Amino acid sequence: MHILLNGLMAQAGRERLQQRFADRVSIDGLSGDEDEDTRAARLGHADVIVTMAFDGSFPAAPKLKLVQLPISGLDQIDLAAVPAQAAVCNVYEHEIGIAEYVFAGLLRHMIDLDGISGRFRQGDWSDSPRFAGNTRGELAGQSLLCVGYGNIGQAIARRAAAFDMEVLAVTRSPRQLEPMPRRLGSYDALPDLLPEADVVVICCPLTDQTRGLLDVDGLGAMKDTAILVNVARGPIVDEDALFQALQARRIGDAILDTWYQYADPRHPDLWPSRHPFQELDNVVMTPHLCGWTEGLLDRRWARIGDNLAALMDGGSLINVVRDAAG
Amino acid sequence: MHILLNGLMAQAGRERLQQRFADRVSIDGLSGDEDEDTRAARLGHADVIVTMAFDGSFPAAPKLKLVQLPISGLDQIDLAAVPAQAAVCNVYEHEIGIAEYVFAGLLRHMIDLDGISGRFRQGDWSDSPRFAGNTRGELAGQSLLCVGYGNIGQAIARRAAAFDMEVLAVTRSPRQLEPMPRRLGSYDALPDLLPEADVVVICCPLTDQTRGLLDVDGLGAMKDTAILVNVARGPIVDEDALFQALQARRIGDAILDTWYQYADPRHPDLWPSRHPFQELDNVVMTPHLCGWTEGLLDRRWARIGDNLAALMDGGSLINVVRDAAG
Repeated sequence: MHILLNGLMAQAGRERLQQRFADRVSIDGLSGDEDEDTRAARLGHADVIVTMAFDGSFPAAPKLKLVQLPISGLDQIDLAAVPAQAAVCNVYEHEIGIAEYVFAGLLRHMIDLDGISGRFRQGDWSDSPRFAGNTRGELAGQSLLCVGYGNIGQAIARRAAAFDMEVLAVTRSPRQLEPMPRRLGSYDALPDLLPEADVVVICCPLTDQTRGLLDVDGLGAMKDTAILVNVARGPIVDEDALFQALQARRIGDAILDTWYQYADPRHPDLWPSRHPFQELDNVVMTPHLCGWTEGLLDRRWARIGDNLAALMDGGSLINVVRDAAG
Repeated sequence: MHILLNGLMAQAGRERLQQRFADRVSIDGLSGDEDEDTRAARLGHADVIVTMAFDGSFPAAPKLKLVQLPISGLDQIDLAAVPAQAAVCNVYEHEIGIAEYVFAGLLRHMIDLDGISGRFRQGDWSDSPRFAGNTRGELAGQSLLCVGYGNIGQAIARRAAAFDMEVLAVTRSPRQLEPMPRRLGSYDALPDLLPEADVVVICCPLTDQTRGLLDVDGLGAMKDTAILVNVARGPIVDEDALFQALQARRIGDAILDTWYQYADPRHPDLWPSRHPFQELDNVVMTPHLCGWTEGLLDRRWARIGDNLAALMDGGSLINVVRDAAG
């Protein structure tokens, strides 16, 4: 079977697939630097493409049986452009890393370990209680609002409960979920819940319904001390409104992992936003790595391998986003 | 009733007591700068002393009914020196802050947010998965050994379970405890459990049994990648052995909040150890503030106030370490 790995995220799985399938598969790659003929030849040949993006600019792929995403987000996939005979599947498995990132950010907000340790290394005891050093806050007793309550929101909520936080959540279709938040509503409930939250975590998919979901009004409804965490997609939070709210300190800190503009190795000189978030001192900013763990790759490529094995051996695909026609 | 607050830790409660009891109490302080006559006068007058330390050097205190610690640790209290007619009580309430500190440290070890954010602010995307940035590890699946399994160990274990960590523990008298670790033994089980742990958290009291509990052999039994966290008392881990193990990188990182030598405002120029831990790059070091939260003070001074009210109104003392004679 011929497998085409498109981009660095896909190519991160090359060794794992080689090890599992040996000479049952041949593996090719695309970096984006190839000329059109090479692209056309490789797509034309491929039974499976592992790719984050697929659109009308892709060459014909008459043999393609599977468009396998190495991520969960479908926002760069134009389903209409995918050949009808190919199924589309995604993968999850990132909820552990993302939930750990969220709490790394929240606990860093509570305890500035790097700053304190830096001072203490200089022999400065002033943070010590014996020197009447400042007390800090606790996560315990604070309320955390998950905007989106799928497997990521639930992984965050389970940890929040262990920290004695109160969990609120909104989701597309509220129903009995585990763990059950103290209040769970639809997206329409956001205006009611935002003013109650000490922490707001964006963890829903980017769709027509969620684009700009948190806008000037939403950010204005938040406590002026509230922490905003975005581990989903930048544009769920209005770009202009977010920058202005942070600049004017109308909300507390933000921990932002997802952005409005993305550089890539061929265009490395792009800032993540039209606005200079990097000039704000109330933002922790990271380049979309919240779920990027060794365990993620192990779990995802095991799932992707299961799909390849299913194609070769006649089993069922998992995480099917769109079935193959016929 | 006359209350004497000895030291800054005790004086942090002055306003809370004043607010609760108004003119039912008179409150005096000792900073350590007073001459002997002043000390003698204030002790001689006191019904209650709130203090971390009490020893044979203290002046006579014939009226003293209660030695109230503003902390849990009894290691600076010489019970034989406390007048027989006085009870001794301590307070806890620090397990929330300490558990949050432990996870702040562990998650910082997993995700270097300050370093990553610093690079990204410069326009450097190299940590991004799209640039083949390094993956990181996960807490999930790692094993955490609590050395000591009282209310602090249990608060840590509850959070560890939510992070899908495996909990091991040793305690003085193993019995059914909540949450129940996968393996729970007495201190004698340490040599068996240390080699299994990815994280070792010291959270037991300092006693004759625990002094030097983790020595050259114990540190040598740990994985060379294991993280050591000490939120209990420095001397539970042998000072020389710890410095040498870290310097030679025989264990992974250490997150150290408790020390071998303590400065105080009158002697601020003291390093926390005979050894230069501040020169090691595999140590996060903080000046004994792991439990130092606003919530801690609220909870502790509520408990201390309850004891003062019990003395004035004839109720029962709580957290009694030693009863008053007769």
